[in-house]
Amino acid sequence: MVKVKVYVTLRESVLDPQGGAVKRALHTMNYNEVEEVRIGKYMELILEKTDDLDKRVDEMCSKLLANTVIEDYRYEIEEVVSS
Amino acid sequence: MVKVKVYVTLRESVLDPQGGAVKRALHTMNYNEVEEVRIGKYMELILEKTDDLDKRVDEMCSKLLANTVIEDYRYEIEEVVSS
Repeated sequence: MVKVKVYVTLRESVLDPQGGAVKRALHTMNYNEVEEVRIGKYMELILEKTDDLDKRVDEMCSKLLANTVIEDYRYEIEEVVSS
Repeated sequence: MVKVKVYVTLRESVLDPQGGAVKRALHTMNYNEVEEVRIGKYMELILEKTDDLDKRVDEMCSKLLANTVIEDYRYEIEEVVSS
């Protein structure tokens, strides 16, 4: 079994209104040191190990987990030590 | 300036229907090796450096960015090298 950590972020050029709202909320709470907030997604997948693991994870990301028109993704694959 | 990467995940005991839907979608696409999907949030904050940086970031997470009743959070602080 492997654990895959997937990080999906908005592309640099894409506006992030949700991040803007969080930034304004933080300013309201007197965290005025905050200059920018960008919101993304973080996903953890538990998978059975397959031969072409890396290729299949990349496909899952590009086909379903991220919208590659406006989002970038990266992932890390970790071995799960079963207890 | 520092960049803070915040990871917010649902607590282990909390049901994740969105993750379940993604898992079913992946199965429909013949990625049957997927056993579990958990969806979380990933946020990047750019901040001015302050004295009690770590304490303030922890407060931002517990007060606004994560709902600590059902979510856990962790964060990493990185120095930003301005170009």
